[in-house]
Amino acid sequence: MNLSIIAVLLGLPAIIYGIFISRKVLSSDPGNEEMQRIASAIQEGAQAYLLRQYLTIAIVGVVTAMVLAIFLGWISAIGFVIGAVLSGAAGFIGMNISVRANVRTAAAARSGLQEGLTLAFQSGAVTGMLVAGLALIAIAGSFYVLTVPMALAANSRAVVEALVALAFGASLISIFARLGGGIFTKAADVGADLVGKVEAGIPEDDPRNPAVIADNVGDNVGDCAGMAADLFETYLVTVGATMVLTALLMTGLGDALVPMMSLPLLIGGVCIITSIIGTFFVRLGSSQSIMGAMYKGFLVTAILSIPAILVVFQYALGDMSASIGQSISFTGWDLFLCTLIGLVITGLIIWITEYYTGTQYRPVRSIAKASETGHGTNVIQGLAISMEATALPTLVIIAGIIGSYQLAGLIGIAYAATAMLALAGMVVALDAYGPVTDNAGGIAEMAGLDDTVRARTDALDAVGNTTKAVTKGYAIASAGLAALVLFAAYTTDLTEFFPGVDVNFSLENPYVIVGLLIGALLPYLFGSMGMTAVGRAAGDVVKDVREQFANDSGIMLGTSKPNYARTVDMVTKAAIKEMVVPSLLPVFAPVIVYFAITFVAGQQNGFAALGALLLGVIISGLFVALSMTSGGGAWDNAKKYIEDGHHGGKGSEAHKAAVTGDTVGDPYKDTAGPAVNPMIKITNIVALLLLSALAM
Amino acid sequence: MNLSIIAVLLGLPAIIYGIFISRKVLSSDPGNEEMQRIASAIQEGAQAYLLRQYLTIAIVGVVTAMVLAIFLGWISAIGFVIGAVLSGAAGFIGMNISVRANVRTAAAARSGLQEGLTLAFQSGAVTGMLVAGLALIAIAGSFYVLTVPMALAANSRAVVEALVALAFGASLISIFARLGGGIFTKAADVGADLVGKVEAGIPEDDPRNPAVIADNVGDNVGDCAGMAADLFETYLVTVGATMVLTALLMTGLGDALVPMMSLPLLIGGVCIITSIIGTFFVRLGSSQSIMGAMYKGFLVTAILSIPAILVVFQYALGDMSASIGQSISFTGWDLFLCTLIGLVITGLIIWITEYYTGTQYRPVRSIAKASETGHGTNVIQGLAISMEATALPTLVIIAGIIGSYQLAGLIGIAYAATAMLALAGMVVALDAYGPVTDNAGGIAEMAGLDDTVRARTDALDAVGNTTKAVTKGYAIASAGLAALVLFAAYTTDLTEFFPGVDVNFSLENPYVIVGLLIGALLPYLFGSMGMTAVGRAAGDVVKDVREQFANDSGIMLGTSKPNYARTVDMVTKAAIKEMVVPSLLPVFAPVIVYFAITFVAGQQNGFAALGALLLGVIISGLFVALSMTSGGGAWDNAKKYIEDGHHGGKGSEAHKAAVTGDTVGDPYKDTAGPAVNPMIKITNIVALLLLSALAM
Repeated sequence: MNLSIIAVLLGLPAIIYGIFISRKVLSSDPGNEEMQRIASAIQEGAQAYLLRQYLTIAIVGVVTAMVLAIFLGWISAIGFVIGAVLSGAAGFIGMNISVRANVRTAAAARSGLQEGLTLAFQSGAVTGMLVAGLALIAIAGSFYVLTVPMALAANSRAVVEALVALAFGASLISIFARLGGGIFTKAADVGADLVGKVEAGIPEDDPRNPAVIADNVGDNVGDCAGMAADLFETYLVTVGATMVLTALLMTGLGDALVPMMSLPLLIGGVCIITSIIGTFFVRLGSSQSIMGAMYKGFLVTAILSIPAILVVFQYALGDMSASIGQSISFTGWDLFLCTLIGLVITGLIIWITEYYTGTQYRPVRSIAKASETGHGTNVIQGLAISMEATALPTLVIIAGIIGSYQLAGLIGIAYAATAMLALAGMVVALDAYGPVTDNAGGIAEMAGLDDTVRARTDALDAVGNTTKAVTKGYAIASAGLAALVLFAAYTTDLTEFFPGVDVNFSLENPYVIVGLLIGALLPYLFGSMGMTAVGRAAGDVVKDVREQFANDSGIMLGTSKPNYARTVDMVTKAAIKEMVVPSLLPVFAPVIVYFAITFVAGQQNGFAALGALLLGVIISGLFVALSMTSGGGAWDNAKKYIEDGHHGGKGSEAHKAAVTGDTVGDPYKDTAGPAVNPMIKITNIVALLLLSALAM
Repeated sequence: MNLSIIAVLLGLPAIIYGIFISRKVLSSDPGNEEMQRIASAIQEGAQAYLLRQYLTIAIVGVVTAMVLAIFLGWISAIGFVIGAVLSGAAGFIGMNISVRANVRTAAAARSGLQEGLTLAFQSGAVTGMLVAGLALIAIAGSFYVLTVPMALAANSRAVVEALVALAFGASLISIFARLGGGIFTKAADVGADLVGKVEAGIPEDDPRNPAVIADNVGDNVGDCAGMAADLFETYLVTVGATMVLTALLMTGLGDALVPMMSLPLLIGGVCIITSIIGTFFVRLGSSQSIMGAMYKGFLVTAILSIPAILVVFQYALGDMSASIGQSISFTGWDLFLCTLIGLVITGLIIWITEYYTGTQYRPVRSIAKASETGHGTNVIQGLAISMEATALPTLVIIAGIIGSYQLAGLIGIAYAATAMLALAGMVVALDAYGPVTDNAGGIAEMAGLDDTVRARTDALDAVGNTTKAVTKGYAIASAGLAALVLFAAYTTDLTEFFPGVDVNFSLENPYVIVGLLIGALLPYLFGSMGMTAVGRAAGDVVKDVREQFANDSGIMLGTSKPNYARTVDMVTKAAIKEMVVPSLLPVFAPVIVYFAITFVAGQQNGFAALGALLLGVIISGLFVALSMTSGGGAWDNAKKYIEDGHHGGKGSEAHKAAVTGDTVGDPYKDTAGPAVNPMIKITNIVALLLLSALAM
C-alpha cells in the first residue's frame, strides 16, 4: 500500500480517540446549576473571542493566499489554506472540549483527586490527539494527493513548495493565536489581579470581580487554543521540513525517494498509536503523585515508540544496513539512532524543565526564599534562574545536533527533530490538561464549592504549571533543530534557484554578521512588543473594572452581578488590536533585510544576510524563549510553594513579593516567550517563499 | 620623529592634566569635621577592598603570567604584566581621587549647583584622562620599545603577541574589577535598602544603618574603579586590535607599515588633547541644565576631533588620495571617513541612551506610569523597555559596520572602533562624575547638611544615572565592532599558523552553529551567576545589619555608632569570593570548547566552533548587556521621576513599586550587564592566545 496512505490511516485513530473521549467527557456530570451558569459564561466568552480572532486572521490569510497564488501558483495557495484552516480547527476543537471539561473536572474533583485528574487529562488528551492526528493527516494526505492522483514527482518544486506553503499556513495562524491568546490571557489575569487582589482586596477568582470570567476565558484561548495552534504548526513544519530536506538534499535515491520522504510520516503515525496507549497509563499510584502519573504516561509512550519506530524503518527501508543516498550516505540504523536521540532530547528537556519549575527543587525554592527579603530580591532571583535555565537545554540541544549530525548529517538532525515531534500527541495532552484544571479551580471558587475541592484542583493546577512550561521548552528545543533543517533548505534552494550567485555564508563576511545581529534583535523586539501589549491591555481591564465598581456599588456587596461579558468583550478587542503588529514583524523583516542589503551590497550579500538572519533569530530566540518560559513557570510555582505554607504562607510579606514575581512571569511565560517559537518558523518559511518568488 | 613616540608625547598631557586637576580638587574645602569623618570611613573601606581585590587578582595574574611565559615567551608575559598593572593603576588612582572629591563636592554644593558640578566633573575628568592617557602610553610605549630599541619588525609575531598579551592583562584585571566591584556595590546597596528602608523604616543614607558606609564604598569600587579598569581594557583592546589587524591583514605596505600601525595611536593622542579642551566647556548655561553642560563638553571634543584626526592622517600618510595596501586597498580619505563613522556612532549611542534613561522621555515615564498599578507592572514595563532599548543601538552598530566595511573593509571597521575609543577620556570623565555625586549626596545626608545641598547633589546624581548608562552602552557598542576585528585576527592567525587545516566558517557547518550557541549561552550563564552573587552577598549584609541592630539597641536610637567597618569587611569578603568563578568562565570556555569539539569532530571543526563561539558571545552579549544597562538606568530614573513629585511622589504606592524596579535594575546595570563587555574581549583574546600556544 502507498506509504502516505498508511500514515493517513495511522492518523485516523487519533481522530476516533478524540471523538470517543470527548463524548465520554461530555457525558460526565456537569455539576450544579451555578457551576453550569459560570461555565457557560466562560464558553460564550471563549467562543466570542476565538470567532473574532479567526475573522481578523482570515483577512490576513485571504490576502496572503492571494499573494501566494499570484507569485507561486494555486497549489501553494491551497496548501497554505489547508494548513491555516486545520491549525485553526485544532485550536477551536481543543478549546471547545476544554471549556466543557473545566466544569466537569470541578464536579469530578468533588469525588476525589483521581476522578478530577482523569477527567482533566482526558480532555487534554483530546486536544493532544487532534493536534497530532490532524497535522499528520494534513501533511500525509497532501503528499498523497500531490504524488499519486496528481502524479507529481515527489521531489518536484511543486511538491516542495506545497509542503512549505502548508507549513506557512499553520505558522501564520499559530503566531496570531499564540500572541493574541497570550495577550488576552495575561491581560485578563494581570488586570483581574491588580484591580481585585490589590485594589479591592478580594481573593483570586472571586465572583464579584468583573474580570474573573475574562481570566478564565483567557486560560482557554491562550493556554489551550493558542498552544494547540502552536504545536500543530511545530509538528507540520518539522515533519514537512524533514521531507523537503530529503527531497532537496538526497540525490540518486531512485525508487527509495518516496519511502524516504514518507518515513517521517510513518514515524509520526506509529507514535500516535503509542501516545494513545500511553494516555491509559496516566493514573495516580500509591504515592498519589500527580506528576508521577504524568511521567508514567509519557514513559510508556516513549518506550513503546522505540520498537514501533524500528518496525516502521524496517517496513519502509527493507535492509537497515544498506547505505542510503549518494551525495550523503548512511544506513537505516544510523537514521534510527537519530530518532532515538530525538526521544532522549525530549525526555531530558522534560526532566530539566521539571527541575527548573517544580516546587521540590532548588530553583523554585531559591525564588521562594528570596521573597522573604522583598519584591526586589524575588524578581532578581527569578531573573537569575530564568537565565540559568537556558544552559542545560542548550547543552542538550547541542549534544543532539552533534550526535545526529555525526550519524547521518543534516538529515540526521531532521530525523531527531521529527522523532521529538512524533510524541506531540502525548506532550500536548499533558499541557492541555493545565487550563482545564486552572478553570476548574476558578469554577469551584466562584460556585462556592467545598474547600477540599479547591485543594484538589489546586494540586492538579500546580502540576499544570510545570507541564505548561515543559511543552514550551519542548517546542522551542525542537525549533532549534528545525531551524537548522530550514536553514539547510534555504541554502539548498539558493543553489538550485540561483546557481550563478556565489553566496558566502562564512562568518568572515560582515554581511553575515549583520544578518545574525538583525536576526538576534527580532526576538527582543518581539518580546518587548508582547510585554507592553499585555501591560496596555491589562490597563484597559483595570479601567473597565473600576468603572463597573463605581457605577454599581451592589457588585462589591454581592447584591448585583457584574457585567462579565463587557470585560470579556473589552479584552477581546484589546488583544486582537495588539496582536497584529508584532505578528507581522517576522513576516516583513526577512523581506526588508533582503532588499536593503541587496541594495547596499549586491544580491549575493542580500542572500547571505538573509540566511544569517534566519540563524540569528534562533540563536537569540532560543535563549529568550527558554529563559522566559522556565523563569515564568518558576515564579508561578514559587508563589504556590509559599501558599503551601512555607516562608510565612498566604498573606505574608513573602507571599506578596511572590505575587509580584508571578505577575512578572505571566507575560514572560504565556505571551512573549512561547510566541517566539512560531516567530522563528515564520521567519524561516517567509525566506524560503521569498526565494521561490524571486526565482519566478 | 618616530610616530609612536609622538603618540606617547600626546598621552603625557593627560597625565599632567590629571596631576594638576587632582591637586586643585584636593586643595578645595573638605567640609566640616563630621563630613571628613564620614569621608575617611569611606576612603578606608574603599582602599581596604581594593587592596584585597588586587591581592586576589595578583594570584591569578602571577599564575597567568607564568603560563604565558612558558607557552609564549617572556615578551608576552611582560606585556601581560604591564597591561594588568596599568589597568589596576587606572582604577586605583581614579578611585583615590573619587573618595576625596565626594566630600569636597558636598562641601562645594553648599555654595551652589555650578560649584558642585565643577568639582565633581573635574574629579571625574582626572579618572577619564588617566584611563585614556595611561592606555595610550602603555600601548604606544610598548610598540616603540619593541620596534625601535628591540628592533623587531612591526608585523612580526613577537610584536603581535606582545600587543595581544598587553590587552589580555588589561582584560583579566578588568573582568575581576568590574564583577568584584559590581557585586560589592550592589550587594551593599541592595542589602542596605532591604534592611534599612524596608525593615527598619529609616531613609536612604541614614547614618544609623551599619551598611551605609559600605554602600558609599561600593559606588567608588564599582562605578569608579571597576568602570575605569573596564574602559582602560576597552581602549587597549580596540586600539591594539586595530594595530594587530593592520599587521596581519595588510600585505605589501612596505615603508607604510609602521605609519599605518602607528596611526591608531596618533588618533588616540590628538583626541586626548581635544578631550582636555572639552572638559573646560562643561559649564551650566542659562538653562541650568546639567545634562546640557555635559553635552557641551562632549560636543566640543567630538567636533574638534574631526580636524585633529584629519591633520594626523595627513601627517602620517602624506597623500590622502593614494591607495594603501595591496591585498586590501583604500585611500586615506576612505579611512578618515571610517573614523567619522566612529564619532557619529558614539554621538548616536549617547543620544539613544539618554532617550531610554532620561526622565523627560517616554521610556522612563512609561515605567513610572506603570508603577501606579503596582510592583508587577513596574517590572513588566521595565523589562519591556530594557528589551526595546536594544533595537536602536543595534541598528546604529549595523549601519556603522556596513558603512565602514564598504569604505575600507575590516580595517575600516577597526578604525571606526578606534575613533569611538579615542573619545574615551571624555566619556569616562562624564561617567566617573556619577559616583562622586552619589557619594556627595550620601555624605550630605549623613552629616545632616541643609536640604538644599541634598537637592543639588540629587540633581547632579540623576544625570549621573544617565551618564553611567551612556558609558556602558558606548563600551558594549565598541565591543561589537572590536569583536569583529578580533574575529578577523583569529581567522588570519589561523591561516598563518595552520595553513594545512581547512576551516569551514560557513553557517552551513553544524559545528559553527554549535559554537554560536555555546557562545550565546555564555553571557546568560555569566549574567545569572552575577545576579545570584549579588543576591547571596546582599543576604549576608542583611544578616550582619540585623545582628548589629539586635546586639546594640543604641544604634537605632542614635546613641551609639554602628560598626561600619565590620559590614564593609563582610561585603569585601563576599564580593571577592563571588567574583572568581564567573570571571574564569570566559577564560576556560574557549579552551574547553576547542578541545571537546576537536575530540569529537577533528581539529578543523574545533577551530570552526571556537571561532563561532567568539561571535556567538558578542551576538548574544550585545543584547544582554544593552538591555541590562539601559533597563537598569531607566528603572533607577523612573524612581527618581516619581520622587520628583509625579504619580504620588515619595512614599506613595507608586514609589514603593518604583523602588522594587530600582532594586531589580541594580544588579542588571551595575553588576551583570557591564561585566559582559570585558567578558566578550577575554573570550576573544584567550582564543588568540590559544592559537599561538597550539602553534608552538
